[in-house]
Amino acid sequence: MNAADALLKTLVDNGLEVVFANPGTSEMHLVAAIDHYPQIRPVLGLFEGVVTGAADGYARMSGKAAANLLHLGPGLGNGFANIHNAKKARSPMINIVGDHATFHLKYDAPLTSDLDGLAKSSSDWVERVKSPEELPAGGSRAWQAAHNFPGQIATLIVPADCAWGETDKIGKILNSVGPSEIDNDVLREAYEALTDKSNCMLFLGGEFLDEQSVNMAAKIATKTGARLATETFRKRQRRGFGIPVVEPLPYFSEMAEDFLDGIESIVFVGSKPPVSFFAYPDKRSYLSPENSKLVQLATFEQDGKKALESLCEMLDANEISEELLPSETSQAPLNGELNPAHVGLLLGELLPEEAIVSDEAATSGFLVYPNTWNSKPHDWLSLTGGSIGQGLPLATGAAIACPDRPVICLHGDGGAMYTIQSLWTQARENLNVTNIIFSNRAYAILKIELDRVGALETGDRAESLFSLENPEINWISLGKSLGVESFTAPTVEEFRKIFSSAVNEPGPSLIEVRV
Amino acid sequence: MNAADALLKTLVDNGLEVVFANPGTSEMHLVAAIDHYPQIRPVLGLFEGVVTGAADGYARMSGKAAANLLHLGPGLGNGFANIHNAKKARSPMINIVGDHATFHLKYDAPLTSDLDGLAKSSSDWVERVKSPEELPAGGSRAWQAAHNFPGQIATLIVPADCAWGETDKIGKILNSVGPSEIDNDVLREAYEALTDKSNCMLFLGGEFLDEQSVNMAAKIATKTGARLATETFRKRQRRGFGIPVVEPLPYFSEMAEDFLDGIESIVFVGSKPPVSFFAYPDKRSYLSPENSKLVQLATFEQDGKKALESLCEMLDANEISEELLPSETSQAPLNGELNPAHVGLLLGELLPEEAIVSDEAATSGFLVYPNTWNSKPHDWLSLTGGSIGQGLPLATGAAIACPDRPVICLHGDGGAMYTIQSLWTQARENLNVTNIIFSNRAYAILKIELDRVGALETGDRAESLFSLENPEINWISLGKSLGVESFTAPTVEEFRKIFSSAVNEPGPSLIEVRV
Repeated sequence: MNAADALLKTLVDNGLEVVFANPGTSEMHLVAAIDHYPQIRPVLGLFEGVVTGAADGYARMSGKAAANLLHLGPGLGNGFANIHNAKKARSPMINIVGDHATFHLKYDAPLTSDLDGLAKSSSDWVERVKSPEELPAGGSRAWQAAHNFPGQIATLIVPADCAWGETDKIGKILNSVGPSEIDNDVLREAYEALTDKSNCMLFLGGEFLDEQSVNMAAKIATKTGARLATETFRKRQRRGFGIPVVEPLPYFSEMAEDFLDGIESIVFVGSKPPVSFFAYPDKRSYLSPENSKLVQLATFEQDGKKALESLCEMLDANEISEELLPSETSQAPLNGELNPAHVGLLLGELLPEEAIVSDEAATSGFLVYPNTWNSKPHDWLSLTGGSIGQGLPLATGAAIACPDRPVICLHGDGGAMYTIQSLWTQARENLNVTNIIFSNRAYAILKIELDRVGALETGDRAESLFSLENPEINWISLGKSLGVESFTAPTVEEFRKIFSSAVNEPGPSLIEVRV
Repeated sequence: MNAADALLKTLVDNGLEVVFANPGTSEMHLVAAIDHYPQIRPVLGLFEGVVTGAADGYARMSGKAAANLLHLGPGLGNGFANIHNAKKARSPMINIVGDHATFHLKYDAPLTSDLDGLAKSSSDWVERVKSPEELPAGGSRAWQAAHNFPGQIATLIVPADCAWGETDKIGKILNSVGPSEIDNDVLREAYEALTDKSNCMLFLGGEFLDEQSVNMAAKIATKTGARLATETFRKRQRRGFGIPVVEPLPYFSEMAEDFLDGIESIVFVGSKPPVSFFAYPDKRSYLSPENSKLVQLATFEQDGKKALESLCEMLDANEISEELLPSETSQAPLNGELNPAHVGLLLGELLPEEAIVSDEAATSGFLVYPNTWNSKPHDWLSLTGGSIGQGLPLATGAAIACPDRPVICLHGDGGAMYTIQSLWTQARENLNVTNIIFSNRAYAILKIELDRVGALETGDRAESLFSLENPEINWISLGKSLGVESFTAPTVEEFRKIFSSAVNEPGPSLIEVRV
């Protein structure tokens, strides 16, 4: 068979089920191969940032890699930002990047670029295939690399002739590296920090915000009085009624310092000492209190679950204090003009069972997250790498992974414009995604940041670079143009009605909330 | 003053007039500095692919660099594809990429990525600033590098503290490298090829498709009988009534081989031996006829204009044959259903004086270009690097450079979706751009390419990856949502009326042509 078919057979044997794609001429044999394997669901994105962001959402919810089919350097470049976000989430991902045929590269044709350099700068693992014979084994290694715990970005560069040539080889199933073991001395150190009567914090992150881990952490906290905390931006956090509250570190460093004030020791599981998102003149980057004792019990790559289990055993920790569970939610209003605080309260009330929330609501979202602790149990996905334009594709991929779960996407208007093409894929695939666009007609965070970096004596021309006014984006018209039922919700009543219907109906919808 | 202000002063001293921007927190002092220099026009793009593509359009029409203000690695990554296209055009461009403060980088905050690797893979020249003192001189060197003939991509990485720190230095004005000299032996060789009675072709490219160069080439052709030809995708070509026809090499390699059939020698000025856009099984990549004599008279970097002048002198070539001028245009229809062939004929008739055409019409554009040879004089810009999503931003930047000239953007629907955010910038800046969207609801070129690479036995699932149907994009609704007056033109009469009005009115418009 041709090597493209052999690659896809290899990947299917390894467990591949979804290909997110925006292919070109150099990928034609790979497209044909996808067609030949009915086990694979091909999903078209009209821009590569949609493709890579969707693969991240899919990976966070399915626990495994999709393959992205991308067209040479520029295709990978267009996917860079959401690969970056996925890399920071440590999501498993395979990029299959078509390149010119080996014999064609030397001619520097228009689409030739420094693909290898770009792949290196965006990926944890890169391999360039040199012959059709090599391609299937390259696929095995890419799958293996992508699934090394907790997940990596694996990029396989496939020259066109290495896909169209013949081979009789199929790649093997290779074992990925699992979580590495905890050091017993560090475990002892963590135990001591938790029990020495100091003001201790148990700081979870990465893979260890699932219900089981959070429950174990809550048992430890109940026994020791440690505070539970997590990262500002989380890959995936289990939350809701009956699930212990693990409070994220605030975004702004001043608030983060307050949050950590008085903490004498921190035990990290799947995370590392927190730093501020950006640096500012005369502000600290490193946020842990000075002289605090920091214990790195489990890094991202280590077996944090085992670490939590061991601590529970050592502490004989079996109970979860009521105090760690979410408290009663404030009442959502029944009517009146809608604002982001209301949206928070309303989602607190209306979030459906097993919802998946993709959160890139930025400044408007500050009021949503705190109000949904006591909602029906759900998973919360956030912007791990800070590169805006992730929320819509992430929601798209999460919906592909979990067709039976409603997906809610909370998005600022500025970020939503980055990968707005996602709406089209949601419509084509008939995904149950409810996109809530907080339209404040600004990069509002930057107005705040301009103040925070110091008085800079700016006027209208600087302000114009943060403003999405003039013209105002018409979200109803925009959503509809891409096949998505779209609404604006100026009042609480309308929001209740539209949202409740949207999450219960198949297919995507968009709700504009003007801020 | 702070270093950000000193950098902007340096760049203004060097000639900077426009900044295309999508800034973030790490660029706040640079934003403030832009505000402090009224000589600079700041233009916001809602996605970095708009920013970098607009800078390319601006450079092609103004002959000089804009500065792009970009936010760390992901911001540069989002701009990669149109930087690639600009690099292939050899357009001067400066990317000012903000980075984390020097002291913050080691903490691997969320937005930290391999920015240096990415910059290297996308740029001709890269410098990372290490202190505020260094920043202004870095700006001088970036301006110099960008303007080394014919133009380069210069990327200056600016850690936030190197912008907010103080300096009393202002960067100098440094001379860029001009076109390098022609070798006299090669000039003699070219003269011989042109006069030895062989079937010779004079192949122009790069900077040498302006009116003066094209006229000189036509004089040489008149005297020697050489055929004139150019690249498939041109940075900027002067065309229209009274201007000699320089025919581009066809896109498909079979047609390109036919085009070159019988040619015994080729003299290249600002270009190099042509190769096919992609490789195909059992097809040739290198297109010049076997055993043809190839004379590289002027590379991209050499003084092609001087070469043409010298040849004119040596040949005593002073006349342009009527045969080299465009012939009478076919009559455009007065009414009936509209198709792409009609659009070609109609643009042939209606293209306004000194129009700038940004062409990314792909398959639909094959019928427009040949019908506009005899239109009123205009400049034609095409997709130099093959990475789709260039046309709309390019038109946007060209309109910023030439506020008094009407800009026509011809775009396929697939490519237009890549950087659709451009429409918003056109509306905000009230640019006279008439965007013609050929809506065939497909990546039509890929349907052709799937056949060309060989029978691959594919079905609906492969076809779905080339199809933009289900849902159909509503272009009227989409254009309007971003503030652009939008129309569909199902008939010749409507197209005549809408187009004529659109090019004569200020502000942007969009015309959908269903194919």
